[in-house]
Amino acid sequence: MASPTEHEVLAAVLQIRGGTLQVLAWQRALPPDSGRWALPGGLLGDDEDVEQSVRRQLAEKVDLREVTHVEQLGVFSRPDRVPGVRRIATAFLGLVPSDADPAVPPDTHWHVLAAPAPVLANAAFDHADIVAAARDRLRAKLSYTNLGFALAPREFTISALRDLYVAALGHPVSATNLQRVLTRRAVLEPTGAVAPPGPAGGRPAALFRFTDRTLRVTDASAVLRAPSGSPGEGTRGAVP
Amino acid sequence: MASPTEHEVLAAVLQIRGGTLQVLAWQRALPPDSGRWALPGGLLGDDEDVEQSVRRQLAEKVDLREVTHVEQLGVFSRPDRVPGVRRIATAFLGLVPSDADPAVPPDTHWHVLAAPAPVLANAAFDHADIVAAARDRLRAKLSYTNLGFALAPREFTISALRDLYVAALGHPVSATNLQRVLTRRAVLEPTGAVAPPGPAGGRPAALFRFTDRTLRVTDASAVLRAPSGSPGEGTRGAVP
Repeated sequence: MASPTEHEVLAAVLQIRGGTLQVLAWQRALPPDSGRWALPGGLLGDDEDVEQSVRRQLAEKVDLREVTHVEQLGVFSRPDRVPGVRRIATAFLGLVPSDADPAVPPDTHWHVLAAPAPVLANAAFDHADIVAAARDRLRAKLSYTNLGFALAPREFTISALRDLYVAALGHPVSATNLQRVLTRRAVLEPTGAVAPPGPAGGRPAALFRFTDRTLRVTDASAVLRAPSGSPGEGTRGAVP
Repeated sequence: MASPTEHEVLAAVLQIRGGTLQVLAWQRALPPDSGRWALPGGLLGDDEDVEQSVRRQLAEKVDLREVTHVEQLGVFSRPDRVPGVRRIATAFLGLVPSDADPAVPPDTHWHVLAAPAPVLANAAFDHADIVAAARDRLRAKLSYTNLGFALAPREFTISALRDLYVAALGHPVSATNLQRVLTRRAVLEPTGAVAPPGPAGGRPAALFRFTDRTLRVTDASAVLRAPSGSPGEGTRGAVP
């Protein structure tokens, strides 16, 4: 049997705030799961695809201009994931750079994801699974793409960037190695300017920026890369 | 408005056959789009999630033991993608190793994907888009994961593996560089045996195998990798 279904879109929007990875969630006021934390989203409209829908629904919670990256995360389809009519969800990962502080509605807050994360223990439906998948996707992509651009301010010192990677990855990272690797991959470039000295004084630190702000695989070995300009280089769906 | 929808799963199953990348498709006998080529799949059942459903429906077209890898590709949700009741599709990528020759039903065939690919020009609905996304996903993942294991026989010579990469990537690859890169990433290991000499004679070639046959990112720089055994290493959704 294949009964009619509803389709919803949900977004796990992540940002590094105060040095820790956080997720945006709103508190449900009504049953089912009232009082629990839910991801922004809602039912797919008749005249939109899931990409259009997630942008429309995110715009109700947060200024979309602050969201630097949105990608499909996957379909969550356990038959009993919500009570009532079967509802299938397309989940998205969204990223906000660390220097933004978008206005959010009163029922909506940022929640720390480092363990213990009360937001995960008190999440509605299967939303904790979606948040975990979003965090894992972000961590994986930091290792083989230039996705750091979506977490960082436009310009930053290497030590500030290191702090963002540490918060996102959840393990120590050396600033020296990070700079070496990202420079070798042509992901980073110096702006030519320096940061104003901090309260402790000391030598001013050089400022860097990401060389581009659209997602690409940075780690592909040259031997497997298509010759430049080759028609073999697909784009749609190429960087999952 | 959010009207009820149907949900279907579709699989783009790829294999390198006769040295070219091919996709499994069946010819629709009935409208809509009768005579056109369609991907295996069908409506999601009430008591299954999309992963269970794609395996059930693929099993109607091909011996599942021959499919070495299946992953979610994405949601295809254009409002007019099929006529009638709105139908949303979760698409999957499936891979079959080059030495398998699974039995398929009479309406089902393998189709060459190299241009011009008649199967794409005569595909039903948005299935050509799904096939293109599957091909692009495969190409991207060959560059930063060990996914080659899912295309190759258990044991192979380097020149045979090179031929598989060339067919999948659609551009030249040097066997020497391929061996160097995959060995450095600890993706390949020699079996200790050699292949029987070909019809032209010559020195017997060493046989290799993939060190493991579950998907992992191989290209992550050590600086971004979690310390071994770290709880920071997520798995679910980690390799998109």
